Amino acid sequence: MDLNPWYVTGLVEGEGCFHVSFTFRKKLKIGIETRPSFLISLNKRDVELLKKIRKFFGCGAIRYSSSDHTYKYEVRSVRDIVKKILPHFEKYPLKGSKKEDFEKFREIVLMVHQNKHLSKKYLSKIIELAYSMNLSGKRKHRKEDLLRALGEVKV
Amino acid sequence: MDLNPWYVTGLVEGEGCFHVSFTFRKKLKIGIETRPSFLISLNKRDVELLKKIRKFFGCGAIRYSSSDHTYKYEVRSVRDIVKKILPHFEKYPLKGSKKEDFEKFREIVLMVHQNKHLSKKYLSKIIELAYSMNLSGKRKHRKEDLLRALGEVKV
Repeated sequence: MDLNPWYVTGLVEGEGCFHVSFTFRKKLKIGIETRPSFLISLNKRDVELLKKIRKFFGCGAIRYSSSDHTYKYEVRSVRDIVKKILPHFEKYPLKGSKKEDFEKFREIVLMVHQNKHLSKKYLSKIIELAYSMNLSGKRKHRKEDLLRALGEVKV
Repeated sequence: MDLNPWYVTGLVEGEGCFHVSFTFRKKLKIGIETRPSFLISLNKRDVELLKKIRKFFGCGAIRYSSSDHTYKYEVRSVRDIVKKILPHFEKYPLKGSKKEDFEKFREIVLMVHQNKHLSKKYLSKIIELAYSMNLSGKRKHRKEDLLRALGEVKV
């Protein structure tokens, strides 16, 4: 049976994550790669549910995460996020504190979709926004290191 | 704005718990108290959402849990569980593995509602069922200790 869209929003309120990661890339003029992704993490016994969610959104992939022994449904394609993920949460909005994360994520994704993350001015704004999300999360790089590297780039 | 019932089911799929605890009570003839409870645990920043859930179900209470630093919405009244919690999940069923926990919880609560937990025969069945739920959970007593104590009781 198909999932009700409000059920999906409720599940995401608890188990979903809107994330934006940054990686240093020498090949890029701006020096930093910006990668938004939408994830839902569940225990192995709920892989079937993740498959239903994948079908519901019509995009994304499921992978095993050895770091926390969960299975993750993940959408990385900016195009898919813009076309399929953002509209869902605009129509069936989150009700708790995760709504704030979503609003910031939405703002970042729309900037990335317009390639604004390739300019210094917008990328520093994106980094600031991203680091104010998911307060409990782990980060590969410190915000200060990203902003310092960005300051040395000419774009 | 009111919560959509499917949203509530989705949230419970991730953050809800159907639990049955047992405590040794010398004052009871059967010697063991059976206490079912329905819980939703969220971070402090989502206390407002817990209040909306309390309003949605029209029963239960919110408390702070120092053991895991979360806030918990909890329904302990067997009457409320029978009248308000079970019907919700029958009409808006869980879609993942938590559905199995709910089915077992439902079976136990209906037995407790009929006072069957006061007889040896049913209580041992209730203990077996309860210990097959929430596989990752912590327990105050080992199943074997409860069943052994029950074996020594004359009811």
